[in-house]
Amino acid sequence: MKPTVLESPAEMQRLARSLRAAGTTIGFVPTMGFLHEGHLSLARAARRENGVVVLSIFVNPTQFGPAEDFGAYPRDLEADLSAAESAGVDYVFHPQPADMYPSRQLTWVTVEELTDGLCGASRPGHFRGVTTVVAKLLNLVQPMRAYFGEKDFQQLVVIEQMVRELNFDVAVVRCPLVREPDGLAMSSRNAYLSAAERKAALVLYRALQRAQERVRGGCKDPVRLRREVVECLSGEPLAEIEYAEFVDSRDLQPTGAVDEHARLLLAVRLGDTRLIDNALLKG
Amino acid sequence: MKPTVLESPAEMQRLARSLRAAGTTIGFVPTMGFLHEGHLSLARAARRENGVVVLSIFVNPTQFGPAEDFGAYPRDLEADLSAAESAGVDYVFHPQPADMYPSRQLTWVTVEELTDGLCGASRPGHFRGVTTVVAKLLNLVQPMRAYFGEKDFQQLVVIEQMVRELNFDVAVVRCPLVREPDGLAMSSRNAYLSAAERKAALVLYRALQRAQERVRGGCKDPVRLRREVVECLSGEPLAEIEYAEFVDSRDLQPTGAVDEHARLLLAVRLGDTRLIDNALLKG
Repeated sequence: MKPTVLESPAEMQRLARSLRAAGTTIGFVPTMGFLHEGHLSLARAARRENGVVVLSIFVNPTQFGPAEDFGAYPRDLEADLSAAESAGVDYVFHPQPADMYPSRQLTWVTVEELTDGLCGASRPGHFRGVTTVVAKLLNLVQPMRAYFGEKDFQQLVVIEQMVRELNFDVAVVRCPLVREPDGLAMSSRNAYLSAAERKAALVLYRALQRAQERVRGGCKDPVRLRREVVECLSGEPLAEIEYAEFVDSRDLQPTGAVDEHARLLLAVRLGDTRLIDNALLKG
Repeated sequence: MKPTVLESPAEMQRLARSLRAAGTTIGFVPTMGFLHEGHLSLARAARRENGVVVLSIFVNPTQFGPAEDFGAYPRDLEADLSAAESAGVDYVFHPQPADMYPSRQLTWVTVEELTDGLCGASRPGHFRGVTTVVAKLLNLVQPMRAYFGEKDFQQLVVIEQMVRELNFDVAVVRCPLVREPDGLAMSSRNAYLSAAERKAALVLYRALQRAQERVRGGCKDPVRLRREVVECLSGEPLAEIEYAEFVDSRDLQPTGAVDEHARLLLAVRLGDTRLIDNALLKG
């Protein structure tokens, strides 16, 4: 059955309230639309674990910088509704920016420190937009469980921190990153890539694999590992490295240890497109 | 019947969830304790309008500056429980700082602009602490209605803005300021006043009354009104003026109009004690 589309935040909140009052558990998948298998894996996990699945599609203006791709961000509501239906989504919440931000927003949720580095360093204000809109969505949708992918790993850790520290009554469910058959991490922004860039984008996966192989082979020196990762990325002339960092998965702090928490986080630019990827070193 | 005391945030949230699942409406009165008639008027309003009344007592460290009175803030749990019982409170939520802030808090809710002036000017970080703890409490207590007094008028407007802009599913209920028989606005901090300061504190009420009388008498010049208010406050040698501002009640912006939205907000120091008060000009 086609999901029911709700556009009004007030209507969404009324529905959530009545579902909860009826004892129905709500599983929530927040997205910016242009759904791919990564999103759908979240929706299917929500489908298995909850009475009702709500998926939001909202390209959130407050998490884009002025020079970023808010206007160009790909949108295809009809395709998204079919995909959502196939994953068993019951309700698609699809508000407009003017519904979510009826006046100039003065209230912000910020998470300090965790948002300073990595993507936060090159995207000032990005995480403030993310945490603020997620707080708004959690209050509107009132889920028992909310599903986030490990693809946006920093975002996931930031949201977990916010949920814990503001005592939101929701369980954040982590879901694994989903890759294309050739290894490219699924992302709505992959649609921006030219054929040449699409090929070049595989360098992210190659770099992650290289690091994992070297660790399996016994390398325990993060300085050396990082040099090899940078070398690997630099071997792709179309890719411009933004960052390549080994961090502790729990707090995103730079790590010198090559242990089960060590994660390699990458961001590169291919032309105008910014791509991120990550993996556990002992993955 | 004595209210049931809950100390654990997790226990509070479980209770809230089960009450809501049972269709019970929760009315919530957040306080820092040392309850007076102002607080109890909120509790009685909550009692009339909800199935269950939760009153929180939490002296919130994050809304006190390093030089402020967090340690000295008056506390008397036994008296508070009796007072809460008399007002029909069902549950008192009384967490410790380490329960509410188990680790160094990284997540903050801020409201811009509305918090810049008035009390925000002399208490940097105060409103960030207020909005953050109120967000936490709303998520823990999950009320249908939350009750705030007009005594802390700037706080009230800031919280209304936060609730609206973060889409909290709660109605903020404004309750009138409650005064002692001689006109002093009720405040837990009145306990700090010496006998001489207690007498001097009446200058706040006198200044508010003076302004209202002059408006009733036809004065429409806010510059002149403000001069007279300052003169009145300055007539009390123990009182040091922190601010005396005519603002629009809706957005706290300085107002030149003497209309039904015009409100006079006052803050003075009496020795080490800081007192605030306010009234509509056409009150």
